[in-house]
Formats: sequence, structure tokens, C-alpha cells
Amino acid sequence: MKKTHSKKTHSTEGEIWVSGINPVREALLGAQTSGSELLLARSDARADEIAQLAAGRSIPVVRGDRERLSALTGHSHHQGVALRMSEFPYAALEGLLEKPLADRDPLVVLDSIQDPRNLGAILRSACFLGAKGVVIPADRSAGLSASVIKVAAGASVYIPVARVTNVVRTLQSLKSAGYWVAGLEVRGSQACYEADLRVPLCLVIGNEQKGIRPLVRKECDLLVRIPAAGPLDSLNAASAATVALYEVLRQRLTEEAGT
Amino acid sequence: MKKTHSKKTHSTEGEIWVSGINPVREALLGAQTSGSELLLARSDARADEIAQLAAGRSIPVVRGDRERLSALTGHSHHQGVALRMSEFPYAALEGLLEKPLADRDPLVVLDSIQDPRNLGAILRSACFLGAKGVVIPADRSAGLSASVIKVAAGASVYIPVARVTNVVRTLQSLKSAGYWVAGLEVRGSQACYEADLRVPLCLVIGNEQKGIRPLVRKECDLLVRIPAAGPLDSLNAASAATVALYEVLRQRLTEEAGT
Repeated sequence: MKKTHSKKTHSTEGEIWVSGINPVREALLGAQTSGSELLLARSDARADEIAQLAAGRSIPVVRGDRERLSALTGHSHHQGVALRMSEFPYAALEGLLEKPLADRDPLVVLDSIQDPRNLGAILRSACFLGAKGVVIPADRSAGLSASVIKVAAGASVYIPVARVTNVVRTLQSLKSAGYWVAGLEVRGSQACYEADLRVPLCLVIGNEQKGIRPLVRKECDLLVRIPAAGPLDSLNAASAATVALYEVLRQRLTEEAGT
Repeated sequence: MKKTHSKKTHSTEGEIWVSGINPVREALLGAQTSGSELLLARSDARADEIAQLAAGRSIPVVRGDRERLSALTGHSHHQGVALRMSEFPYAALEGLLEKPLADRDPLVVLDSIQDPRNLGAILRSACFLGAKGVVIPADRSAGLSASVIKVAAGASVYIPVARVTNVVRTLQSLKSAGYWVAGLEVRGSQACYEADLRVPLCLVIGNEQKGIRPLVRKECDLLVRIPAAGPLDSLNAASAATVALYEVLRQRLTEEAGT
């Protein structure tokens, strides 16, 4: 089941490297796994378990060093494990919603980010600022490509990304599950610091040019804006998402500090 | 002094288009102006004044339409005026400091952002969130290239950017002028929301990889961090700068709201 280092480990068009113990383990346990090569730069019980899972699916296992994994994945959070796949293994939203509230709040829904750099930047900010999951639509949206994973700087190892076919129905499900849906809009009725963002929260970020689509906006319980103090109309979508996620965290941390 | 539309209006390597009534006017009045072509898509007294200034410096004036100016400048905030220059006309810090406090507070000092996309994104966020000026070092820093101006999405029309040879001396001057210098660091001693950022403020943002240099850090009156709630070590430099500038604005707006 083990091979020596080969040229096969070079990424080709459309292929991505999924890395990190948990993401690789879950990808190998998933029903639709399409891994074509497992790269290991660690030797311990967890590496052995993953190598066995790969062998059970006839996926070749290659030994490498950590620098090589960093180069292939584009970040250093790979934990010595990377699986080459034809597509990013998106998480199931249903599985995410079965977790305890602390492990699934806040969530971010992107409707629909098209610049891969913005998507990667939002994943990084969301992970840094404590968001527990990101939802993207299957159509009209950047997906988790190799370059998005690189810009996300390791976030893809930790934060689940679900891909859904219908954002409106997803928001309806999230509201049924107890979430408040806050849309971020340039002309939102409240500044983000005026809204109570300590409730179970799903933050909706719109497309770079068009913002949130009307039918999606109708599902929002509140519309918040980043306050402006200059002549420009808007922030970059990733910057705006980052500010809103910071404000969510600030409110939650200062609530804790006050009790 | 007027020519018909020519191929000369295409940007070439290292050339940039400065746009907006005030920036073009100031560039034409500056001592070291190197404008090579003025493009006008408006006909009024202000356009006439600028055309006369250009003629006085033997700079050809070309009539164009606004779409053409948007394509050349990379944004739509050109106000129908663009001047082709070999280098961005940086502002003089001394001139900025002669303005009333409200027109020069807060300031941002970048030490030293190297990714042009980060520099452009910081300019856009700074302008949107009400910063009054940005200072960059002449060495080891991205400068205001055509791509930076494009990512800044119009911010370069409104926010002065000064370029200095010595960041340490600049911070010493700013402190003498009454500013508090706040450095943004991953391991800052206070979360940014815990610090009082309503004082006359100069916010220092470090390099993407190395952060703020030790000698620059020594000039900081306080070191603040963006709070983290996840496994990642750091935010992207532009995202971090945006959050800090939002926090400055939030404190100032809520102070106003409270009085």
C-alpha cells in the first residue's frame, strides 16, 4: 500500500489537496470519496489509521515531508496529512446542525461570492473569528479550489463548508432550527453594532456586485450595515464579512466579560 | 491644447492614472508634476481650470468618455478627470498635519505591506471607514501602482497617501503632534475593543509575514490585537487593518450616540 515518492503528487487542473487529520479522515470515511493519493508526513497511530482507511479504498499512500505538504496545500496547517481529491469534500449541513449549539453558531451563508480570493479571505476570517461553518450555493459561486484553499491559509482544515442547491430553503431550515438570519447590506437598517448579535446567528453575505438576492433578503430577520464615514459606497465583500464577524465576536466576548 | 482621441491613452508599464478633480488639480499644481496626458470627460468650469493648468505645463489634453476613464483608472470615482503620470503623486505628511484635527484623524501607517492587493484593500477600507490619511515607507513596501489604485476602488481619489523614508522618525513626529500610536499585533496586550481609540490616533499595521519591526514597535504607545476565537494564528493584514479601523469608528460613533 505504500509507494515511494512519485511525480504523481503534483497538482493538476481541478484537483485539490484536502489536509488535516479530521478532514482527511472524514473524506476517507465519506460515501462519495474520490481520493487518488494520500500523502503522509507523520508516523503515529493517527497516520496509521488514515493509511489503513486509504488502503481499504485502494488509494495509494506516499510518504513525503512537511515542507512538501505545505507547498502542495498552500498552508502549514496540514498536520502531516493530505489527500488528493478531484473535488473538495463539502460538509453536510444536516450533520453540522446535529452538533451542540456552541459548535454550530455563528454560521455564515455566502450568496454568492464569485472571486476566489474573497471566498478564501472570508474562510480565513470566519475561522479566525470563531464562525463554526460556511454555506455556499452550488451555482453562481466560487467553489473550494486549490487557490481558495491557499488564500484561506489553513481555515479549510478547521471550518466545515457546506454546499447547498437552494439558499432560500437553507435559510428557512436554519430559522426552523432556531437561528436568526442577519443579512449584511450597504443600506441595512441598523449599524451592525446596534443589533443584538449574541443570538444563534446566521450571517448572510451578498455577491460582490449585486449584494444579496431579493428572495434571499426576504428570509433575513434583520439587515445590518457596516457604518461608513467616507465617500465610498461599499467595502470589499470579504472586508465587510470580516467586520461583521468581528462585531459578533466582540459582542459575545464583552457579554462574557460583563457577567 | 486639445487633441482628438489617440492610442496614447493606453497605460504602459509603470504608468498610472491619477483621477478626481482634487488629486489631478493638486498634481498639476505640484512642484514635481510629471503628467504626460490629461483625459477629460466633463465640460464645466472645473474641467476648464484643470485643462488650463495642464496647458500651462504643456501637457496634452484629450477628450474621452466616462466609460473610458473608468476602464483606464479601474474605478468609477474619477469625476471625469484623469492625468497620466509616471508615478503616483504622494501627499506631503507636513501638509496633512497642518489641517484641522478632524481632517487628519485617524491616520494609518503601514510597516510594510508588500502585497499590492493588501495595500489596495487597506486603502479602500481606510477610506470607507473614515481614516484621513495613509503613510507608507519608500522602501520595502508596495507603492501606489495601477493595480493598487484599481483594488482601492476609488479610495485613492479621496484619501491622501504619504510616502516617508523613515517610519520611526515619522511616528516620533506624529507623537509630538499629539497622536497616540497604536500598533496592531497578533500578541497585543489588549483586545482592540478594550483600548480607548477615541484619542487622536495613528494606527500601525505591520508586514504580512514579519509584523511590525522592533524599532517601530518601540514607538507604539499601545499594542492592540484582534480577538481570536479559532485555531488560526492570524488574520490577513488587510482584514486585520479593516477590523481595527472599524473598531475606531465604532467607538467614536457610539460615543457620539451616548452624548
